[in-house]
Amino acid sequence: MLGSCVETVRKTMPLVHNITNYVTVNDVANALLACGASPIMSDEPEDVADITSICGGLNLNIGTLNKSSIAAMWIAGETANALGHVVLLDPVGAGASKLRTQTAIELMDKLKLDVIRGNISEIKTLALGSGSTKGVDADSADTVTEENLDEMVSFAKAFSAKTGAIVAITGAIDLVADSKTCYVIRNGRPEMSKITGTGCQLSGLVTAYVVANPGNKTEAVAAAVCLMGLAGEIGFANLQPGEGNATYRNRILDAICHIDGKMLEEGAKYEVR
Amino acid sequence: MLGSCVETVRKTMPLVHNITNYVTVNDVANALLACGASPIMSDEPEDVADITSICGGLNLNIGTLNKSSIAAMWIAGETANALGHVVLLDPVGAGASKLRTQTAIELMDKLKLDVIRGNISEIKTLALGSGSTKGVDADSADTVTEENLDEMVSFAKAFSAKTGAIVAITGAIDLVADSKTCYVIRNGRPEMSKITGTGCQLSGLVTAYVVANPGNKTEAVAAAVCLMGLAGEIGFANLQPGEGNATYRNRILDAICHIDGKMLEEGAKYEVR
Amino acid sequence: MLGSCVETVRKTMPLVHNITNYVTVNDVANALLACGASPIMSDEPEDVADITSICGGLNLNIGTLNKSSIAAMWIAGETANALGHVVLLDPVGAGASKLRTQTAIELMDKLKLDVIRGNISEIKTLALGSGSTKGVDADSADTVTEENLDEMVSFAKAFSAKTGAIVAITGAIDLVADSKTCYVIRNGRPEMSKITGTGCQLSGLVTAYVVANPGNKTEAVAAAVCLMGLAGEIGFANLQPGEGNATYRNRILDAICHIDGKMLEEGAKYEVR
Repeated sequence: MLGSCVETVRKTMPLVHNITNYVTVNDVANALLACGASPIMSDEPEDVADITSICGGLNLNIGTLNKSSIAAMWIAGETANALGHVVLLDPVGAGASKLRTQTAIELMDKLKLDVIRGNISEIKTLALGSGSTKGVDADSADTVTEENLDEMVSFAKAFSAKTGAIVAITGAIDLVADSKTCYVIRNGRPEMSKITGTGCQLSGLVTAYVVANPGNKTEAVAAAVCLMGLAGEIGFANLQPGEGNATYRNRILDAICHIDGKMLEEGAKYEVR
Repeated sequence: MLGSCVETVRKTMPLVHNITNYVTVNDVANALLACGASPIMSDEPEDVADITSICGGLNLNIGTLNKSSIAAMWIAGETANALGHVVLLDPVGAGASKLRTQTAIELMDKLKLDVIRGNISEIKTLALGSGSTKGVDADSADTVTEENLDEMVSFAKAFSAKTGAIVAITGAIDLVADSKTCYVIRNGRPEMSKITGTGCQLSGLVTAYVVANPGNKTEAVAAAVCLMGLAGEIGFANLQPGEGNATYRNRILDAICHIDGKMLEEGAKYEVR
Repeated sequence: MLGSCVETVRKTMPLVHNITNYVTVNDVANALLACGASPIMSDEPEDVADITSICGGLNLNIGTLNKSSIAAMWIAGETANALGHVVLLDPVGAGASKLRTQTAIELMDKLKLDVIRGNISEIKTLALGSGSTKGVDADSADTVTEENLDEMVSFAKAFSAKTGAIVAITGAIDLVADSKTCYVIRNGRPEMSKITGTGCQLSGLVTAYVVANPGNKTEAVAAAVCLMGLAGEIGFANLQPGEGNATYRNRILDAICHIDGKMLEEGAKYEVR
C-alpha cells in the first residue's frame, strides 16, 4: 500500500542529511519538512561524518559539485554505508561534463546505493557510459514514451540488477524499478519542468520515504514519486490566471504538506510490470 | 517601547553583513529588506574585512559552515569587534557535530558577541558543553515549558552574565535575557517549525534591530523576536485552505513588510522577569 | 522590434551557464525558465569548461565571489570567448570591497564581454575607478535622474565605446547603451528594490536574450530590461492588501512566464537617444 508509506514518514519524522546543490537547496529542505521529515545540510568534509551519523538517510546530489563537496560525499557515503543508512544518488548533469559523469559513476561503483534517481539522460549516462544531454534537463531523444516503454522497463530492471540500487527514472512517464518489478507512474504535469528543482526535491523525499519504510523500499520510492506527481497535479489545479512557475513551485510544496495516505491511494496513477 | 525599535530600523536602514548558510540565505536577505534593513552576503576570507567595515552589524550563522567560511567568520568577527560593530552568533546545529560545537564555542569565547541566538539545544550545548540535539532542530527533552520556566529564565540570565552577550533562546516560548532582565515571549505559531529558516531569518532581523537601537539592545532583541512571532501569527491567519509551508513562508515575510511600531506594541505578547 | 526578441528566446530555449551568487541563484534559475530559457549552474574550476561549452551564454555574477569561483569565472570566460559565446558580467558590489572591484575590473579588461549590467554605483566603479557604494545597492548620490540624464546617456555610450560591451545601468531609470545608441527605459516599480535579486535575475534574462538574438544584441538587452520592468509592474498590480516582498517576488516571476512579444511591445516604455 503506497498510502502507508506516507503515514510512516509523518510518524517517524526521519532525519535526512543532504549534500546537495545551492540552487534548489531551500526547496529541498521545505519539501522534506512538508512531507513530515527533517532536513539537515552539511557539505564540509570535516563535518559530514558526524552529521550523517545522527541521520537515517543521505541524499547525494551533484548539481553544483565542487572538490570539497565531492570529498564530503565520499566521507558521508562511506560513513552512511558503514552504519547501514539509506543512501541515494541524484546524478544531476551526468553526461554534461566529465567531472559530473566520472563523479557519479565512481560514487555508484564504490558506494552501496539504495536508490539512484535521475532523468533518463542522466541514467543512460550511468548505465551505458553515454547518453545525450541538454545541460541538467533530459534530451528529448532519450524520452520514455508509450512506444519504447517495454524496452525502457527492461532497461530500468537490468540497471537495478547491475547496481543493486532501486532505479527511479523521472520524466513524463516515471519508472521505479528493482531487478524484478517496475512501477510505471503517470502522475505529474509537464509544467513541472518549468520550475527549477522538482527533481532535487523528489530525491529528498525519496530518501526520507526509504528511511521510513525499510521493509518495502521499492514501494516507498514509488510512493514518493507518485506523491510528487500528485502534488504537481494538485498545485496546478490550484493555479489562478496569471500565475506562473514561482507560485506553482509554492503550491506544489503546499500540496505535499496536505497529502496523506488516503489521498495518495486515490490519486496515484501507476501500473506494476 | 518595543514599537520604537521597529521604527528606528526603518528610518536608519542598517546595513547587515551576513556570513550564513546557503539553505536559507535568500529568505534572510528578504527578511532584512522586509524590516527596512539592507543585507549583504560575503564569505570569502579576502573579501569580508572590507565588507564588514561598511556595515553596522555582522550576522554569523554556522548552518553550512566550511573551512573557508569559518576563516571568514574569524576575520569578519575580529574586524567588526575592532570597529565596535554589532556581532551576532547563530550556532546552528551546535551539538550535532564536533566541528559545529567547537566552532561555535571558540567564536563565543574569543569574539565579543552582542547576541547569541539559537534553539534551546544549541544554547545548552554552548552553555553546558552538552545538550541533546535532533540535527538543526531542538530536542524535545530540552524544551522551555511553563513548568521549567523559572529555571530556564535563571539559566538564560546566567549564560548572559557569563558571556556578556544578550541571549535569545527561541522555541514555543522565547526567552531574551541579559544578566538582569529576561523577556518571556509568547508570540509565534508552532507551524513555523515546518518552514526552513525562520530562526535564520530572525538572526538577521535581530542583528539589524540591535544596530539601529544601540541604546537599548536587550529591548531591541526582544522587539525583533516579538516581530518574527507576530509575523508568524499574521501569516498564519492569512493562510487559505490547501496552503502549506511554502506559502506560509511567503506570508510571514510579507507580514514583516507591514508591521510598524504600533502593530508590534499591540501584538507583542511578553512579560519581563 | 523588442517583441520579437521575446519570441526568439521562447523558440530557441537558449542554455545559459551561470556562475552566480548563492543568495539569489534559485530566482535566477526560475527567471530563466520563466522566459523560456534553460539554466545550468556550475562554479567548480574543473567543471566549468565542459559546462560552458554546451551552453550559448555565460552569466558571471560576483555577488558571493570566492577564490574558487573566481578561478572558475576565468576558465569559463576564456572558454566562452574562444567559442564565441555570449558573456555577461554582473559586478555585484564592485566598489564595496577591493576584491570585488579588482575582480570585476580584471574580468572586464581581459575577457571579451558582450554585456556589463549593474547599478550605477557599480558601473561608475568600473568606468571611473571610483563611485560611492551602499553595499550591493546603488548610492543615492549616483542616481540617474531626469536632471542628469543627458550626461548619463553620454557616460553610458562612452563606457560602451571603451569596453566594447553593451552597458546596462539599471535603477529608477534604466539605460542600455552601445557606443552609438542608448535606450532610456522607464519600466519598473521602486518596490522592486525591496526584493533581493531582481538585478541578478535580470542579468540571467539578458544573457538568454542576447544568445537568442545575435543579430540585434543591443535591442535584445533593451527588451530584457523592459520585460523585467514590465513584469515588476504587472506583479505589483496583482498584489493584494497585506502582501509584501516575498509574494511580490513570486508574482514578478509569474509575470515573466506570461509576457509575450505583443505584451512587451505594448508595455515597454522607452525612448532611444
